[in-house]
Amino acid sequence: MDRYWSSVARQLTPYVPGEQPKIEGLIKLNTNENPYPPSPLALEAIRHAAAASLRLYPDPDATAFKEAVSRFHGVPVSHVFAGNSSDEVLAHTFAALLKHDLPLLFPDVTYSFYPVYCGLYGIDYRTVPVDAGLNIRIADYAQPNGAIVFPNPNAPTGQPLPLSDIESLLAAHPGSVIVIDEAYVDFGGESAVPLVARHPNLLVVQTLSKSRSLAGLRVGFAIGQPHLIEALERVKSSFNSYPLDRLAIAGAAAAMDDRAYFDQTRQAVIATRERLVVQLKALGMEVLPSAANFVFARHPAHAGPALHAALRERKVLVRHFSNARIIDWLRISVGTDEECALLVAALAEIVG
Amino acid sequence: MDRYWSSVARQLTPYVPGEQPKIEGLIKLNTNENPYPPSPLALEAIRHAAAASLRLYPDPDATAFKEAVSRFHGVPVSHVFAGNSSDEVLAHTFAALLKHDLPLLFPDVTYSFYPVYCGLYGIDYRTVPVDAGLNIRIADYAQPNGAIVFPNPNAPTGQPLPLSDIESLLAAHPGSVIVIDEAYVDFGGESAVPLVARHPNLLVVQTLSKSRSLAGLRVGFAIGQPHLIEALERVKSSFNSYPLDRLAIAGAAAAMDDRAYFDQTRQAVIATRERLVVQLKALGMEVLPSAANFVFARHPAHAGPALHAALRERKVLVRHFSNARIIDWLRISVGTDEECALLVAALAEIVG
Repeated sequence: MDRYWSSVARQLTPYVPGEQPKIEGLIKLNTNENPYPPSPLALEAIRHAAAASLRLYPDPDATAFKEAVSRFHGVPVSHVFAGNSSDEVLAHTFAALLKHDLPLLFPDVTYSFYPVYCGLYGIDYRTVPVDAGLNIRIADYAQPNGAIVFPNPNAPTGQPLPLSDIESLLAAHPGSVIVIDEAYVDFGGESAVPLVARHPNLLVVQTLSKSRSLAGLRVGFAIGQPHLIEALERVKSSFNSYPLDRLAIAGAAAAMDDRAYFDQTRQAVIATRERLVVQLKALGMEVLPSAANFVFARHPAHAGPALHAALRERKVLVRHFSNARIIDWLRISVGTDEECALLVAALAEIVG
Repeated sequence: MDRYWSSVARQLTPYVPGEQPKIEGLIKLNTNENPYPPSPLALEAIRHAAAASLRLYPDPDATAFKEAVSRFHGVPVSHVFAGNSSDEVLAHTFAALLKHDLPLLFPDVTYSFYPVYCGLYGIDYRTVPVDAGLNIRIADYAQPNGAIVFPNPNAPTGQPLPLSDIESLLAAHPGSVIVIDEAYVDFGGESAVPLVARHPNLLVVQTLSKSRSLAGLRVGFAIGQPHLIEALERVKSSFNSYPLDRLAIAGAAAAMDDRAYFDQTRQAVIATRERLVVQLKALGMEVLPSAANFVFARHPAHAGPALHAALRERKVLVRHFSNARIIDWLRISVGTDEECALLVAALAEIVG
């Protein structure tokens, strides 16, 4: 029957997201969701938008949301692109800005959606190995390329690069678009947004799924100079004129404007993370220094797949990747203190 | 600066949606929105979903919504694909099922997003002229093709094809995917959904934007046999794992389940349309027989662009297209009886 499929559909290897199982009493630390609810102001804005006006199309430019991003980051509205999740923003970025004659570069250990986008859009890419400590080394990108993309902090390791490294990279590759995927930056990384004004080749992507507790609302954005934003708008307007619904625009704008709640909840996540790192190390685990809302850890005496399975038997779900270089590592989302305590107790049973 | 753009971004001609102006007192009959609010049950479901659980990712399969579509249409859940608007569903359809060595065929007068998708995905297409009465003629598609797509009723003419014509087309092109875009079918057309079970090459696309009054929620779906749905799922999962947010899944499922409200509001739109047609003809206008929530009309003594501008001066917004074959026609969305009366009064001033 696949004679009806296009060659693209035939050749794809789709991305597999973390499980969303419906298991009673599960401790779910596998998809980096925030343990705290969204801003009450965001929920109120959504309820207010659940009205007769839903019969009307949304603003195709999502102006109210872009203005809130503009206020938060101190950038002009013309520097902001909005999408139905940072995954959609990234997809359009790959199509509009990362497909060139020379290959796209990204780390061999990174967000596993990147090669999937390359498959979808026929983008030639090359992976650049992270070092033995699983760190991105900027010097390793000194090779011919059409563009470069990686998360900062990197996923799934959580390790951040200093802004000086990002700036060196931008200066070394002035002809290449450099995309910094800052999904996790609010938990301890340094944002590259302040570099946008003086680097015409920089695009920064962020999401409301993690630090704004809105994974269920699907809103992401990019910040770059207007010539990069225009390329994204062209692709977006050739795909779906109104990617953000009225509820998402209202809720996301209110979430960006609620700085106090944002600061309070991300500080709570950071504090729990620091306690969790100490507890995991006390169990004999190696834990990478994390600037994200997850930690990346392994145990010298227990293989990753077995540890993942043993935790799952105890109703604790963490994320495990099949990439050979990180086969023994687990990515553990930072939950509440209570959830982390249950995780630590389960791990103690297994490795103790 | 466009040295940073991909060749795709450079070559695109994006779709331009109908205006969404913020003009006080405007009679907005230009984007085929439903004049009635969404089902109260849908609004209630959305408010209920605006909760702490928005911190969690949505169900990537939007199962609750697919089950509601399954109940409404009496098809298995495995025959349903869901997306962030029928525009997104169509975009994935073009990528997954409509790109082949032989050209894609669609009418020369039709939804103007189709050639835009072809530009985005590099799809070779050929337009097939509608006849002198602006009708699609099935016999004209008897030429080599990789796939065929058109709306039924067609846009922006509103004229429907009988199901027997669709069935003839399916039988004549068993090797081609045939996509029937039923955005407007609930206002008087015959749905091809009952043909899906016996035609492996048929995909039917529908939206909640028109007959369910949810243009602001962005939900669409496709119905086809599982081998076609699988191709769409592969592309979707290579683009955005969770295209429907939690609010959209909840609201759209409730809207599909509220059959009584759906029937009541679409019958009200149909009744207003029939009165509007009579009034327009009384003004000397030619009006195509419409099975949609809009009418397509022209006046023998007034050019389309002038008529469109004169209405806009009177704060009545209708849609006009620059396609040469329909340059003198206006597409007028069916509003409430009051809105239609104001439109007719403004037209009477202009042409009277």
